[in-house]
Amino acid sequence: MKQNFKFKIMFDGTRYFGWEHQPNTDLTIQGKIETVLQRMVSSEKVPEVIGCGRTDAGVHAKAMIANAFLETDMSTDAIRDYMNRYLPDDICVLEVKEAAERFHSRYKAVGKTYCYTCYTGPLKPVFDRKYVYYIEETPDIGKMEEAAKLLIGIHDYASFCSNPKMKKSTVREVDSIQIIKKGQYIRFTYHGTGFLQHMVRILTGTLLEVGFGKRDVSSIPELFEAKDRSLAGFTAPASGLCMMQVDYN
Amino acid sequence: MKQNFKFKIMFDGTRYFGWEHQPNTDLTIQGKIETVLQRMVSSEKVPEVIGCGRTDAGVHAKAMIANAFLETDMSTDAIRDYMNRYLPDDICVLEVKEAAERFHSRYKAVGKTYCYTCYTGPLKPVFDRKYVYYIEETPDIGKMEEAAKLLIGIHDYASFCSNPKMKKSTVREVDSIQIIKKGQYIRFTYHGTGFLQHMVRILTGTLLEVGFGKRDVSSIPELFEAKDRSLAGFTAPASGLCMMQVDYN
Repeated sequence: MKQNFKFKIMFDGTRYFGWEHQPNTDLTIQGKIETVLQRMVSSEKVPEVIGCGRTDAGVHAKAMIANAFLETDMSTDAIRDYMNRYLPDDICVLEVKEAAERFHSRYKAVGKTYCYTCYTGPLKPVFDRKYVYYIEETPDIGKMEEAAKLLIGIHDYASFCSNPKMKKSTVREVDSIQIIKKGQYIRFTYHGTGFLQHMVRILTGTLLEVGFGKRDVSSIPELFEAKDRSLAGFTAPASGLCMMQVDYN
Repeated sequence: MKQNFKFKIMFDGTRYFGWEHQPNTDLTIQGKIETVLQRMVSSEKVPEVIGCGRTDAGVHAKAMIANAFLETDMSTDAIRDYMNRYLPDDICVLEVKEAAERFHSRYKAVGKTYCYTCYTGPLKPVFDRKYVYYIEETPDIGKMEEAAKLLIGIHDYASFCSNPKMKKSTVREVDSIQIIKKGQYIRFTYHGTGFLQHMVRILTGTLLEVGFGKRDVSSIPELFEAKDRSLAGFTAPASGLCMMQVDYN
């Protein structure tokens, strides 16, 4: 009988085309993990690994959650060690747990935390250049905090979604946006029930435009009414984004 | 008239064949910097950039010092900004200063600080995997500190030099080796008058062998007498090594 397993995964997304399978490449996190699991269970069929979300190309994760049904006698620690032995150096399985049969990493997720990190200053960062978005000038943190207050709540975030063909509801709840400056790093932490395609990056781009004085704080509320992607800010680059936590009941 | 300039340079050495020019590749730090400077001064001849030492392939630097004689009217800040605009993302010029004519970054160096960083634990580090040496087990820090005390001083470090054809003196002074464990990181900090080829990495490999109980602390003093590379420890990988500081009078 197959057992449902829950995986907590850390990865450096720099060289990948995101979480989800893509045609004509094996450079996806899902693809790498499924290949290793197929080998582990010696199955002809590739075991499907369900991710809690579809991270974009170049986005990182400190705790991506996934699940998969596997036929195996191995202990959860042995599965973790096997996976880490065969996965590339930029993907690490932090934890494997047995999960209830009905557990689904995407459908059962009730909250997610993302961090977006900017690095400011006259000199580009060398050692974490792939994990930040480098901006020369420091934006006005106070102004961004004002705008962040207007961006949270239960809203139709259609203006903050890069998929114009999105058929399902674009209403989401974002309950907190924290902005913390520490040295040359500015870290935006988002928590919400779920996020649309590119939503965290567009929220960050919009906040940065406010911080740089290119956009008024007062322009924020009308973005929810407009439901027009072209009115919101730019899509901040993938490198600065990292999935931090997924909540389940 | 040419002016002597002093450069402070940070680089991620991962993809380079070290500081110094190598045949059949332009992937050296020296090569990248010289190419940019040649373009900056529009000279037919490549300006020679003298480094304070020859870092190995894969070794990093937070403050490599170099100097070069250049014919230019540009200010030191303008030179720095020009260089950073054209250098790749993994090399950053932190500072450019006018130097005395007799200043030579290698001959005038009186001390150097290197850090070697290990990461221990059951799980491999994902985000700084290129800047550490991953070891699963934690070595005995107390034992390594005992051995470190025997490794400092003024000695003939021939056993810790990977170049068997070294004709010049292999006597050096290492005045301190600090070993600090913080979380999953173990950081070895070396300060001395200068270091032979691979010396910091061989010292680290020797200390780790002591820490893992593969070598007795009492075996250390005879290494100076022996002058035999094969008797010292293994050469710890380049990724963990970083040049931190160079002292001048």
